[in-house]
Amino acid sequence: SPSSEGGGDGDRLTDVRGSAKSVFMVSDGTGWTVEHSVNAALGQFEHCLVDRVCPVSTHLFSGIDDVDRMMEIIAQAAKEGAMVVYTLADPSIAEAARQACELWGVTSLDVLSPITEAIAAHLGVSPSGLPRWAPGRNSSLGEEYFRRIEAIEFTIKQDDGALPQNLHKADLVLAGVSRTGKTPLSIYLAQKGYRVANVPIVMNVDLPKALFEVDPEKVFALTINPIVLQTIRRARAKSLGFDDTVRSNYSEMEYVKEELEFASKIFQQNPIWPVIEVTAKAIEETAAIVLRLYHDRKNRCSMPRISKRY
Amino acid sequence: SPSSEGGGDGDRLTDVRGSAKSVFMVSDGTGWTVEHSVNAALGQFEHCLVDRVCPVSTHLFSGIDDVDRMMEIIAQAAKEGAMVVYTLADPSIAEAARQACELWGVTSLDVLSPITEAIAAHLGVSPSGLPRWAPGRNSSLGEEYFRRIEAIEFTIKQDDGALPQNLHKADLVLAGVSRTGKTPLSIYLAQKGYRVANVPIVMNVDLPKALFEVDPEKVFALTINPIVLQTIRRARAKSLGFDDTVRSNYSEMEYVKEELEFASKIFQQNPIWPVIEVTAKAIEETAAIVLRLYHDRKNRCSMPRISKRY
Ligand SMILES: Nc1ncnc2c1ncn2[C@@H]1O[C@H](COP(=O)(O)O)[C@@H](O)[C@H]1O
Ligand SMILES: Nc1ncnc2c1ncn2[C@@H]1O[C@H](COP(=O)(O)O)[C@@H](O)[C@H]1O
Ligand SMILES: [Mg+2]
Ligand SMILES: [Mg+2]
Repeated sequence: SPSSEGGGDGDRLTDVRGSAKSVFMVSDGTGWTVEHSVNAALGQFEHCLVDRVCPVSTHLFSGIDDVDRMMEIIAQAAKEGAMVVYTLADPSIAEAARQACELWGVTSLDVLSPITEAIAAHLGVSPSGLPRWAPGRNSSLGEEYFRRIEAIEFTIKQDDGALPQNLHKADLVLAGVSRTGKTPLSIYLAQKGYRVANVPIVMNVDLPKALFEVDPEKVFALTINPIVLQTIRRARAKSLGFDDTVRSNYSEMEYVKEELEFASKIFQQNPIWPVIEVTAKAIEETAAIVLRLYHDRKNRCSMPRISKRY
Repeated sequence: SPSSEGGGDGDRLTDVRGSAKSVFMVSDGTGWTVEHSVNAALGQFEHCLVDRVCPVSTHLFSGIDDVDRMMEIIAQAAKEGAMVVYTLADPSIAEAARQACELWGVTSLDVLSPITEAIAAHLGVSPSGLPRWAPGRNSSLGEEYFRRIEAIEFTIKQDDGALPQNLHKADLVLAGVSRTGKTPLSIYLAQKGYRVANVPIVMNVDLPKALFEVDPEKVFALTINPIVLQTIRRARAKSLGFDDTVRSNYSEMEYVKEELEFASKIFQQNPIWPVIEVTAKAIEETAAIVLRLYHDRKNRCSMPRISKRY
């Protein structure tokens, strides 16, 4: 699994760069698309990435919208023995990049043109060739954009059971014991435009009445393996500096199991709530499952899908 | 710009589906990768999507990991005149999909195999062919995974100037007046693993001392065009139900301009803080700019890039 240089010290990298194979990711925009594609593909090499048997490092170059800078990056890739994966909206720059990589023996891949061309053929319309930040583009941030921001703000305010009186305004409600990932899952879904509320389940504590008054088809129950939950809670208690008495109640196996059973009984009394097992699932995986169920119920069409209009 | 069926009613779609060109997006995993790629490519057709001159609808099918269900979807695509874009880790299923689309005259594109094959050639290692949810895969959620969750929780707690005593623990600090997008930007960056704090600037209100005591290289100032800010604030005041006196102070042009000038003076007194213009930028665009500056400063290497190790 990836180890980011994210918040850390960029220098950690320099001493090992020599041994790792490099992937240069280049975009005329943010670079998030090419990064997402490369990450998905790296999932196919986990057997070799694990324990850094064959270490890989990725390098993201964003906002590269002229040929000269692109050529510098390709030259650097040739020097470092890196491959180059890119999204460049301007077809002449993309083509120049392809030729330069070929000339200098750099493995390369254009991840934008094939899909742009396939969509162009399907729509019968030519692509603009204008990158995200081209001066000609009018990037009006529409209604949808403000709806997503509003959803994020709503979701933050409802976090951890705050404001149960607003549960009826949520699109999705998540219920589960502490450390089932309700908060990061809520935030992930909020960024996709859903107003999410989450309700913590705590042993022998009554749940807010509002939870049983909202449309039960929008409520999702989260559950997790007790051993995994205990491990996560122990780490959590340590990082929060809980003292031993609090900790034992929170992360002792006896308590963890009883609390999960307490939750489980509530779920049984509300059989419409789907119970989602989150053990060993990444947030984006649980999110995919929640949204699939949610849309299947909303659409009730023959073939389950999540649809959007552009 | 995209109009999601997200939190809305799935039925809104049915009455217009006939007129829109459909793109089926299929994955054996979550589908987020193929969705991201299609969204980026649709950016190349904004001239035609605008005002729904040529309406497009996307349909996401996730968790499709057997040939039979894939064939059903392709048959449905043929019926609806849709194109099919897919990520399927199992090469035999991907190949079967390709052939079926060809046979039935469905425009199709495999967005995973080309990048997987290019990386395989670069690393000299064969891809596993195992999808995200294959039983054989051990999906241990590593250190990095928990670090990201911790970053999200940290960021939510610091939102809107809460806990200034924790500013020194943040990787990134954002400062700006109300409605410059500090909260959604903080959350976006948190999901990438950064601990973010944001500090609101309010006219004639002293900023927390801690802001001037932290490493100034991690502080980013946000600014925005006053006319755009006024429009956003007016909408905000309306949705919060502010009464007229509060509203006038918050969204009157005089006040908006003075508050931006007040902020601007603070920024001038702290010249190390980069000032980022957020007008007409999407959150992910501002995030890309913040992270590029942040990493350039950290690495101080000849060629600006954001690097990660796998
Ligand atoms: N709204 C948009 N309009 C035009 N091009 C876009 C848009 N969004 C993304 N792109 C292009 O899609 C590719 C990926 O974008 P990004 O994820 O920002 O790197 C880049 O080549 C961008 O120029
Ligand atoms: N960690 C992973 N291990 C194996 N395959 C993955 C992983 N992450 C993503 N993939 C594959 O990459 C493609 C895109 O994933 P997704 O974004 O979940 O649709 C799918 O074909 C997944 O099976
Ligand atoms: Mg990109
Ligand atoms: Mg996908």
